[in-house]
Amino acid sequence: MTKGNINVSVENIFPLIKKFLYSDHEIFLRELISNATDATLKLKHLTNIGEAKVDYGNPKIEVKIDKENKKLHIIDQGLGMTAEEVEKYINQVAFSGAEEFLDKYKDSAKDSGIIGHFGLGFYSAFMVAEKVEIITKSYREENPAVRWICDGSPEFSLEETTDKTDRGTEIVLHIAEDSLEFLEENKIRELLTKYNKFMPVPIKFGTKTETLPLPEGAAEDAIAETVEVDNIVNNPTPAWTKSPSELKDEDYKAFYHELYPMQFEEPLFNIHLNVDYPFNLTGVLYFPKLANNLNIEKDKIQLYQNQVFVTDEVKGIVPDFLMLLRGVIDSPDIPLNVSRSYLQADGAVKKISSYITKKVADKMVSLINENREDYDKKWNDIKIVIEYGMISEDKFFEKSDKFALYPTTDGKYFLWNELEEKIKPSQTDKDGNLVILYATNADEQHSYIQSAKDKGYEVILLDSPIVPHLIQKLETSKEKISFARVDADHVNNLIKKDEPAISKLNETEKESLKKNVEESINDKKFTVQLEDLDSKDAPFTITQPEFMRRMKDMQATGGGGMFGMGGFPEMYNLVVNSNSEFASKILANENAEEKSSQIKYALDLAKLSQNLLKGKELTDFIQRSYKQLEK
Amino acid sequence: MTKGNINVSVENIFPLIKKFLYSDHEIFLRELISNATDATLKLKHLTNIGEAKVDYGNPKIEVKIDKENKKLHIIDQGLGMTAEEVEKYINQVAFSGAEEFLDKYKDSAKDSGIIGHFGLGFYSAFMVAEKVEIITKSYREENPAVRWICDGSPEFSLEETTDKTDRGTEIVLHIAEDSLEFLEENKIRELLTKYNKFMPVPIKFGTKTETLPLPEGAAEDAIAETVEVDNIVNNPTPAWTKSPSELKDEDYKAFYHELYPMQFEEPLFNIHLNVDYPFNLTGVLYFPKLANNLNIEKDKIQLYQNQVFVTDEVKGIVPDFLMLLRGVIDSPDIPLNVSRSYLQADGAVKKISSYITKKVADKMVSLINENREDYDKKWNDIKIVIEYGMISEDKFFEKSDKFALYPTTDGKYFLWNELEEKIKPSQTDKDGNLVILYATNADEQHSYIQSAKDKGYEVILLDSPIVPHLIQKLETSKEKISFARVDADHVNNLIKKDEPAISKLNETEKESLKKNVEESINDKKFTVQLEDLDSKDAPFTITQPEFMRRMKDMQATGGGGMFGMGGFPEMYNLVVNSNSEFASKILANENAEEKSSQIKYALDLAKLSQNLLKGKELTDFIQRSYKQLEK
Repeated sequence: MTKGNINVSVENIFPLIKKFLYSDHEIFLRELISNATDATLKLKHLTNIGEAKVDYGNPKIEVKIDKENKKLHIIDQGLGMTAEEVEKYINQVAFSGAEEFLDKYKDSAKDSGIIGHFGLGFYSAFMVAEKVEIITKSYREENPAVRWICDGSPEFSLEETTDKTDRGTEIVLHIAEDSLEFLEENKIRELLTKYNKFMPVPIKFGTKTETLPLPEGAAEDAIAETVEVDNIVNNPTPAWTKSPSELKDEDYKAFYHELYPMQFEEPLFNIHLNVDYPFNLTGVLYFPKLANNLNIEKDKIQLYQNQVFVTDEVKGIVPDFLMLLRGVIDSPDIPLNVSRSYLQADGAVKKISSYITKKVADKMVSLINENREDYDKKWNDIKIVIEYGMISEDKFFEKSDKFALYPTTDGKYFLWNELEEKIKPSQTDKDGNLVILYATNADEQHSYIQSAKDKGYEVILLDSPIVPHLIQKLETSKEKISFARVDADHVNNLIKKDEPAISKLNETEKESLKKNVEESINDKKFTVQLEDLDSKDAPFTITQPEFMRRMKDMQATGGGGMFGMGGFPEMYNLVVNSNSEFASKILANENAEEKSSQIKYALDLAKLSQNLLKGKELTDFIQRSYKQLEK
Repeated sequence: MTKGNINVSVENIFPLIKKFLYSDHEIFLRELISNATDATLKLKHLTNIGEAKVDYGNPKIEVKIDKENKKLHIIDQGLGMTAEEVEKYINQVAFSGAEEFLDKYKDSAKDSGIIGHFGLGFYSAFMVAEKVEIITKSYREENPAVRWICDGSPEFSLEETTDKTDRGTEIVLHIAEDSLEFLEENKIRELLTKYNKFMPVPIKFGTKTETLPLPEGAAEDAIAETVEVDNIVNNPTPAWTKSPSELKDEDYKAFYHELYPMQFEEPLFNIHLNVDYPFNLTGVLYFPKLANNLNIEKDKIQLYQNQVFVTDEVKGIVPDFLMLLRGVIDSPDIPLNVSRSYLQADGAVKKISSYITKKVADKMVSLINENREDYDKKWNDIKIVIEYGMISEDKFFEKSDKFALYPTTDGKYFLWNELEEKIKPSQTDKDGNLVILYATNADEQHSYIQSAKDKGYEVILLDSPIVPHLIQKLETSKEKISFARVDADHVNNLIKKDEPAISKLNETEKESLKKNVEESINDKKFTVQLEDLDSKDAPFTITQPEFMRRMKDMQATGGGGMFGMGGFPEMYNLVVNSNSEFASKILANENAEEKSSQIKYALDLAKLSQNLLKGKELTDFIQRSYKQLEK
């Protein structure tokens, strides 16, 4: 038997780094700035604990384009490296200096913010550069500066240099011909904004002109002096890195606009996330005003790892129902290279998702308790998120009685138990079931809502597209309740009670009336149903049985339904009020033609109530009515 | 100056392969089966060119679960390896045997279908296995079988073995405790279906029972014999690998259902893609019937590389407007590990995208030329794709006059030039502009459509949500044409001609009529506009000027609009026909109250035509009408 060691040859692995490891070339800048940040924060840590006896100062990272010579410079004022350190950290691919550092200073460096990847980041430079130089000088002053040069082959050169006298590292990328876009100021600015906007060390990119304030007592026509100052492109201490107690409402709002410069509306409220066990996560989420919003697609939740932008594709990390929120999540536990299926399987990510769900539920409870009136007002803007959460996350649903509102068509907002209490006396049917009446469109169902209100019922307005599913969920989890849309039956039958009906007509008359109506309307969509209603009620009412309509709605919102792809037939009941004046008039009319045209006209009116009179039928109705008017 | 070689140490790189290279653990099976496929296809190639003097036979790849011993086996009947080859290909990480092979047999192996990654695939086994064994015997019979074992540390052992007597390679994964799911039959079946469904070598996973046909003349009560046969999970020669001439319409349909087993509807038509310069790409795209379709999200275009499934996230590869299509694209030029931003920047991918766009346009031209009637019938199912293509891809738009249809509200379908020819005589206005009248909803705009048709105009039905953008595009790219929705003005003014109007009323009467109307309706939304129309035309008509309405529609579909987020005010014109009987009647009526109530009633009717009578107004209208009826 032979024993041996698996061998990794640099000739083989090197091309992979370019082709395979980072599928996205622009990542190189994020990686190099992350390294520069780590070098700076390590020095900060060493000065803090007294191990480095140098003046930390106010170091920054500079990014500089030298278009003429096709070079891009990334310069930091961090630790720097000695020749030995270059040998160790650079010449050994995949040897992570950050990991070693964190290992060595385990306890003290825990919150230093050091990014610490896999030690491969530096090599991503070769994705865009044909040659890379490192000019570096260690903070340990006795060591001379060194220059390392490599053209992407495994061969490098390393020599002492006098070119650099101050501490830190300068990376010079000799940009390759196929990557010249990375010498464009706009491109680099775009990348800095995308990946480094909130990194913890100030990043300088060019200079800008600032106007100095005039000295006190200056002449009115004095011209203010201007100076060139560093143009810092990032905010090293974004809101989520601070403690909630440091932040006021304005600060959260200001940060919202910093995140989404194209958003002009204010967010409704924010949720500050802050957990360090069993995983690390900070962040700020915002409930945006969703109505009228054109940027839903673009302004998404952003994911960071130690203030480095990772992605704004948060599907899998944030529960689906919260995808409409905005804001930032920062966690060192989220891998920098994320693939969706990986995230879905990852245990830490699952925990993050349920933590966020819980935080959102808690926030809702505190918001409604703090200021009920304000919460009521915001409900219409947040309900789609909350309702979607209720049907998709059981844990969220379980808590939702504390914060989910059921608004009435008159603009009252009830919690579930408030609603129950309010309607119990009048809306309990003869079997002891509580019937909740709802409308899905206050305009279209106006006449039905009116009838229900006239009877003393409350009508809930549920107008989100997912309502059929929400109702299903509520009906299956709560006892002895059911939902009925206001047009599911005539108002007298919506909530069945043991009340005897008084009939004006006898059976023969009823039969004749029914026959008259059926013959005149001659439409199989409508089932004629005679009812002994109040004589003042409408003569005709079109209703749609709850079950069929709900199945249809569910199908329309993609929820399947029992009949597969077939589509439901359109079926309605035509409730004829046999106690109405109109019924008597019809029975008494001997002119068959007039009788039929009156019935048709009454049907047209009933159809108008149900939004069913359309197209040619409506045009004809209007033309006839105009003629009538001109007579 | 020092010179040296960058060093990659196996201790550092090994953990990366597990943590970093493949973010998705389940990929291991795809990688190992790809290797097995390559080993088989290489042998095929060598026997074909006479370099291997063995019987190629009908090799297959077997996947076997040994749950009890926590092992997963992947067994091929390909080339096999000698001890030297194991040393070379396995013990050197990232040394791609496939690349070397393709290099050596450059010309002859071009179309061998060898997958050829980066030589890292094998190591992905360690993502799920704590120990990996390779038992392999080369097709060169003089070489003994060898067994290689490695527990994920860089140390391996290699020895001769008599355990294997037939050629090929068996990989045995000792599944790690945290990956036991990969010993579940369902999980493995799921992965084989996802990644290997169309790989070119048959893959056996278990056995199944097959009933043998009864021998001829068997007794009626004879019992058919059953046999155990290999259960082959893949189709090694899917439709897209064949030439279009080999395939009939049924074959394309059958393949559609093979791709999407949950799709019951037939596709409308297919497009066979086949190009080998300047890049390699094959595939079959389908236009699905989109109406009523619940699986839009799930059944997407799938991307393959040499018959290995890569992803069904094709955004960036396929132009956006074709994302609603289904089918398969296979290209060796698409990187196996794809990230969206990478794809968008990749030159090859851009070419693929414009090739597909061109193919789709060509297909449309050939479909319409082959069978116009059939194409007309399919138009409503495909228009959303075509129209979206027209507004988003200029190249596609340029060709669209050859295949984009403009259907009328009467169900005629015109190409642009056919439409122009047809309407030129009647719909050219006094300035020589061709005015195309359209409706967006045949039902809601019925009375307006009717008026336009009565005047001899054609009304185009444009009912996709992106129509405002399409119209904009057409208006800016074609000369002397404009679009007007049928309710943009009274039909007499939609297409301005030099026709003198005859007036029944004198100026004083008109002024008085206008005042009457304005006072009665008392609503700033409506601008009262008197017109001398035909006495038979409706007394009142509500119109919405084209420009404002279109801006509003654009805003609703997310296209911005000039007024930013403000939302447009609702503004209508109330056209009063001063020649109507009604106008005369109003003027003559001395009873102010009755006059006012008649005007209001006429306004209600006009609102009904424009779908503006809603909620309380509609309920009141209906109640009043019922009362009128009961009088």
